[in-house]
Amino acid sequence: FSHQKKTKNGMMSRAKVLTIDTMNPTVKKVEYAVRGPIVARAVELERELSEGMKKPFSEVIKANIGDAHAMGQQPITFFRQVLALCSYPELLSDSTFPEDAKSRACSILNSCGGNSMGSYSPSQGIESVRQDVARYIERRDGGVPCDPDNIYLTTGASDGIVTMLKLLVCGEGATRAGVMISIPQYPLYSAALAELGAVQINYYLNEEKFWSLDISELQRALDEARLYCNPRALCIINPGNPTGQVQSRECIEDVIRFAAQERLFLMADEVYQDNVYAEGCQFHSFKKVLFEMGPEYSETVELASFHSTSKCYMGECGFRGGYMEIINMDDDVKAQLTKLLSVRLCPPVPGQALMDLVVNPPQPGEPSYERFIKERTATLSTLAEKAKLTEQVLNTVQGISCNPVQGAMYSFPRITIPEKAVKEDMGQQPDMFYCMKMLEETGICLVPGSGFGQREGTYHFRMTILPRTDKLKILLNKVQEFHLKFTQQYS
Amino acid sequence: FSHQKKTKNGMMSRAKVLTIDTMNPTVKKVEYAVRGPIVARAVELERELSEGMKKPFSEVIKANIGDAHAMGQQPITFFRQVLALCSYPELLSDSTFPEDAKSRACSILNSCGGNSMGSYSPSQGIESVRQDVARYIERRDGGVPCDPDNIYLTTGASDGIVTMLKLLVCGEGATRAGVMISIPQYPLYSAALAELGAVQINYYLNEEKFWSLDISELQRALDEARLYCNPRALCIINPGNPTGQVQSRECIEDVIRFAAQERLFLMADEVYQDNVYAEGCQFHSFKKVLFEMGPEYSETVELASFHSTSKCYMGECGFRGGYMEIINMDDDVKAQLTKLLSVRLCPPVPGQALMDLVVNPPQPGEPSYERFIKERTATLSTLAEKAKLTEQVLNTVQGISCNPVQGAMYSFPRITIPEKAVKEDMGQQPDMFYCMKMLEETGICLVPGSGFGQREGTYHFRMTILPRTDKLKILLNKVQEFHLKFTQQYS
Repeated sequence: FSHQKKTKNGMMSRAKVLTIDTMNPTVKKVEYAVRGPIVARAVELERELSEGMKKPFSEVIKANIGDAHAMGQQPITFFRQVLALCSYPELLSDSTFPEDAKSRACSILNSCGGNSMGSYSPSQGIESVRQDVARYIERRDGGVPCDPDNIYLTTGASDGIVTMLKLLVCGEGATRAGVMISIPQYPLYSAALAELGAVQINYYLNEEKFWSLDISELQRALDEARLYCNPRALCIINPGNPTGQVQSRECIEDVIRFAAQERLFLMADEVYQDNVYAEGCQFHSFKKVLFEMGPEYSETVELASFHSTSKCYMGECGFRGGYMEIINMDDDVKAQLTKLLSVRLCPPVPGQALMDLVVNPPQPGEPSYERFIKERTATLSTLAEKAKLTEQVLNTVQGISCNPVQGAMYSFPRITIPEKAVKEDMGQQPDMFYCMKMLEETGICLVPGSGFGQREGTYHFRMTILPRTDKLKILLNKVQEFHLKFTQQYS
Repeated sequence: FSHQKKTKNGMMSRAKVLTIDTMNPTVKKVEYAVRGPIVARAVELERELSEGMKKPFSEVIKANIGDAHAMGQQPITFFRQVLALCSYPELLSDSTFPEDAKSRACSILNSCGGNSMGSYSPSQGIESVRQDVARYIERRDGGVPCDPDNIYLTTGASDGIVTMLKLLVCGEGATRAGVMISIPQYPLYSAALAELGAVQINYYLNEEKFWSLDISELQRALDEARLYCNPRALCIINPGNPTGQVQSRECIEDVIRFAAQERLFLMADEVYQDNVYAEGCQFHSFKKVLFEMGPEYSETVELASFHSTSKCYMGECGFRGGYMEIINMDDDVKAQLTKLLSVRLCPPVPGQALMDLVVNPPQPGEPSYERFIKERTATLSTLAEKAKLTEQVLNTVQGISCNPVQGAMYSFPRITIPEKAVKEDMGQQPDMFYCMKMLEETGICLVPGSGFGQREGTYHFRMTILPRTDKLKILLNKVQEFHLKFTQQYS
């Protein structure tokens, strides 16, 4: 009877089997700020507004997450035409669809069991899609060869990253696996490591030098970590999330040398590979640099790199498409990876189809080519403008300083929070206090820097550059006004 | 230098970071027979055939997996029309699409950020879809109330099942969490438990009584398990996979009483809820039975039930749509569940849209109603015929005995394997030896019973009933011929 208690109506009631005290303790440690309490409050505010409640704003603007279509970005017409054709193949006889969209749809459907996207694909992904991905990587990397057998299609990039981390986890106590991640980081990494019970090893990006990565800091972090865990992997996000830096080729070479020397498995999160805006910056894939460093590296360093349909000019987050390429992975481990993926059957087939279109878009001479290029260019150049605008406006505000948004989709400015506000935070982080107050007063939803990690005593927020330009201007003005008011209030 | 070795060209090469000896040991324990070595061999044979190699068969027939469209089942027209409209909304002005498909597409798009399936949805799933799921469950269960807040959309049912198991895992050594699963089982369960490091507690279904579930066997399994672990959950698959039984209402009541008394979290895998063929059999949801047993049970027993777009008359496996309903879950645990799901952002939106259509299909009076009913009825009645045919033909073969396929999509006949073949198996299970030989000689790909679990000394295979009727007849004849030949060869 120890598990039973009386309820109000006198009935014997059993204590629950699954309670906060008896649930998986590693799950409790998971945190994910991008969809944390501040977003929950934003959703609540939206509901209150729609119910006619009065607020000091007429609209909640969610600048917390890189959700391009939700912020008004339009999908690429060609991609959606092909997806419609694949969904409902009777449209193949509709003369309003361009011929290249039809032929692309036919080729995708021919690779599906029973010519239907409703069939399971192989667990590693549709073979012809993996071949197209391999050819894309070869073109992108100036001819460095790519084997379709090394390509795994995934349910968004997150799925691939978590799967790779899962393979790497092992050991207990002082030999527990450790994984190096940048601070600030994208919190998928910390969340996955917490859930897997691995050790998170922080290395700090250099805010003073445009959030660049210093090898001496990598070395410091690694040396300290070796005292209490078994460092096995090094994760890099390039272009950076939330920090927006684009790594130089030289820096990537240094990182590869470091990984080789220190025997670390490299994980390169390259989902923003088309999102490079700043003059003089260019995306270099880890794979390409690795191969150009010669066989000493290209034949030994283990690398997994990740891409997705969710970012760049596509912004198709909802389809959960993505791939990973693995280099120099031990054959037995690869067999284990394939087996592990088979349990979940396959990534969503519409996402695989979309990934195929991203790596194999309309070619010169095809009917959809011009429209495709026009749409892609428009999206990317608007993003570049907004990156510049965001940096410029934020840097005019006293108490806010913002590094250039060289790439990706976010600004991550540093904010000065007055001592008085730091002391007043009432159990929350000062930047959470700041962002929560901004949300309540302006309707703008940002993510506090503490959700990504930052040097102690510094405060930041992450803001996407995705709102439409007119809206972005209003948003930046509101941020400016709020910051000044907040500073006055607590000075 | 201990990590380095010379390669053939004299270069110093580093030992790999990630090897079979240093990888996550729990991943190595994972097994998943439905896509195991026999399927890998089937794919190889298909390639060899396509390259013109001579085989004793002209085609590989994959009866290993419930992949309906791959076996020729046609998608429901209405579902695909709506998906095409959602993918490419310009089609909304196309007069060839029925009005109800258009209005359904508009309502789905209105629930998507920026009216695009390319936006992330809330992590728990699109709110209007969860409301539609709740109304579906209420209709299905004769008015038992369903709260949309208890509905979580998932990436296929597998995702929901693994997530729930993840919450339940805890403890070490003799207090390690244990989960009861039926034997035979669908190997997702054993694979997930192995990966999570939980204890698998086997209870055996009664083959002599149409694979029914005996409470005395549940009690035996539980009592034995209590000596070495902490049993926390009981998983039921109804209709059964791979065994095809449909549980009686009485049996479900007994299971619920057992779970209540023994304090077990109930997990009901109900993805085959529309696949019931046998006379006198009917699907009863655990939720409905639970609520009809009165507040002593309905207010205390913790239940998660799972559904999917992949089975029933839809067969849309590739879209990875699904939902779970949770009942009586502790509020703090529910908050943890929502947080955990947020890390993976959201289930694929096209799969959510499809789930919405499944729970909210065309209604009487709507233009697509008749066609929808006709297509659904045709698919389900063909499946019922094939279930009957499979059972009948297999039971004519000496050495094969097959329980009625009351529901789901598989037969799981018992096969007699001669002593001599059992001894000759050369390191593989006798039924794997049998199935591998059948594949090489006939091109038919089945899954050996050992992949699902079976009583020691008994042998089975799982065969889907999905091939087109004419093909199914050929397949059954080939199985018959092979079995006779095999029996002669080893007698």
